[in-house]
Amino acid sequence: MRIVSLAGGIGGARFLRGLRAAVPDAEITVIGNTGDDITLFGLRVCPDLDTVMYTLGGGINEEQGWGREKESHVVKEELAAYGVEPQWFGLGDRDFATHIVRSQMLEAGYTLSQVTEALCDRWQPGVRLLPMSDDRCETHVVITDEQGRRAVHFQEWWVRLRASVPAESIALVGADTAAPAPGVLAAIEAADFVILPPSNPVVSIGTILQIPGIREALTGKTVVGVSPIIGGAPVRGMADACLTAIGVETSAQAVLSLYGSDLLDGWLVAPEDSSVALEGVRVEARPLLMSDPDATAELARAALALAQELSR
Amino acid sequence: MRIVSLAGGIGGARFLRGLRAAVPDAEITVIGNTGDDITLFGLRVCPDLDTVMYTLGGGINEEQGWGREKESHVVKEELAAYGVEPQWFGLGDRDFATHIVRSQMLEAGYTLSQVTEALCDRWQPGVRLLPMSDDRCETHVVITDEQGRRAVHFQEWWVRLRASVPAESIALVGADTAAPAPGVLAAIEAADFVILPPSNPVVSIGTILQIPGIREALTGKTVVGVSPIIGGAPVRGMADACLTAIGVETSAQAVLSLYGSDLLDGWLVAPEDSSVALEGVRVEARPLLMSDPDATAELARAALALAQELSR
Repeated sequence: MRIVSLAGGIGGARFLRGLRAAVPDAEITVIGNTGDDITLFGLRVCPDLDTVMYTLGGGINEEQGWGREKESHVVKEELAAYGVEPQWFGLGDRDFATHIVRSQMLEAGYTLSQVTEALCDRWQPGVRLLPMSDDRCETHVVITDEQGRRAVHFQEWWVRLRASVPAESIALVGADTAAPAPGVLAAIEAADFVILPPSNPVVSIGTILQIPGIREALTGKTVVGVSPIIGGAPVRGMADACLTAIGVETSAQAVLSLYGSDLLDGWLVAPEDSSVALEGVRVEARPLLMSDPDATAELARAALALAQELSR
Repeated sequence: MRIVSLAGGIGGARFLRGLRAAVPDAEITVIGNTGDDITLFGLRVCPDLDTVMYTLGGGINEEQGWGREKESHVVKEELAAYGVEPQWFGLGDRDFATHIVRSQMLEAGYTLSQVTEALCDRWQPGVRLLPMSDDRCETHVVITDEQGRRAVHFQEWWVRLRASVPAESIALVGADTAAPAPGVLAAIEAADFVILPPSNPVVSIGTILQIPGIREALTGKTVVGVSPIIGGAPVRGMADACLTAIGVETSAQAVLSLYGSDLLDGWLVAPEDSSVALEGVRVEARPLLMSDPDATAELARAALALAQELSR
């Protein structure tokens, strides 16, 4: 069985762990969001790719959902002692090593795909992890704060401001000229079906779908999505702030409409959202909370079962 | 009082601490060796500049003589877990932060002098620390080992091989076209006298003297050196291996002759080397062991007293 999944960070990574547990023999290709990527202290940081890699590779900080377990913060404290900015992004020492290896390889001329593959050699995530693109494209957010109206990097809005200032618009800078990373379109083409985990529909899944060619390739496939919204609130994270920015209501119905029936064939919602409907999409109600590995695997199994049924 | 001192790593840094204690009001400019510099994991490492900066700034690992106090090695262990080479160079987490800041600034277009000044803003070493040159020039060593005859970076010979393989020759690659860093020649010009600490005469002081213009600028000044050799053995380190490589005996006499009377006006040797002599150079015997801060300050005072006497 060949499965493609698009994924953002924490929610996507946890869902993928359930998916891998549900079908250990499946060939799973994960197309990871790189719109959150940022260069900090001269080092290239790919938060979502790393969250997927660490989560599936057994190195994640489980409680936090991102970063490494048993982490220390000596380098960050020393950088602060030098007065180097930004100080609001929490990189740990173990995590720094990943960014150092990545940056050194990128500087040497390797592509982000090649770097990701090399990093995964260590982590053995049990899936094939591909960045959505080898081209640099980063999400920027227009905000108005005490410094006036300006565009900031997604991480500045998300991490420094905790999305407390409304996003007036969100744009993936560089998307127009970006190409899917090698293997992305071929994996979609070869897939039996595609699963969209409950990742952020705007700045994770939505970002991946903006890379020219990816959405088009998905149109011909059986695609089942898991709603990231339960009863009007995000399962986790601040997806509501992102949806508001693009004029979409925070509801399982609105996200379904945002994805549309040209993309989705099936849509899993929580029991309280069972009234959700869209012509051309099979909606099923299931418990969506990924409260533990078993519940997550069960959710993945439900998504797979629906996809298998729809692809017949 | 204006003093210029050339300096390598551990021995030079300790001597400078004594010098600063001996004449707290003097304006001391240190011209640091950068021939040991190396790019590791994409980060620019300047071991001698950092040893001087950390030692005078109160951050040095006293026992080890190099690196930071209270150091951890998480990043290094993680890099090793990724299989990244080299694994023989011992960078600690605190130290990594210094190299990250330096690399980011160099990448942004700042010169090594500017970077060193910025790093010293934090450390406040109480001296003006200048790299010998802003141009990259690195010491390489020709050796013959199981891989055949080849040139390796000085650090590979020094740290990985612990100088256990004889150096057939030692060359400062890039010296021909390197220029003294801004301020170096002016500081020498303005100096009342110049002190050469007991640093390695080949790969520390000798390296600095190879930068075109520096040795010439020193010729007109009163220069007093402290022998790095006591009774036929280096005070510390492996200077003997370097001297052998350039065909010079490991003795206070041979190093005096190597520096020559065109450079030196005074030469401090240990009591057991009191027979050392060279026409045109005043040789004085003094206890040279920098066994504690007081003894080191006393040695610096002796060098200063001789320099003052000779410059009259």
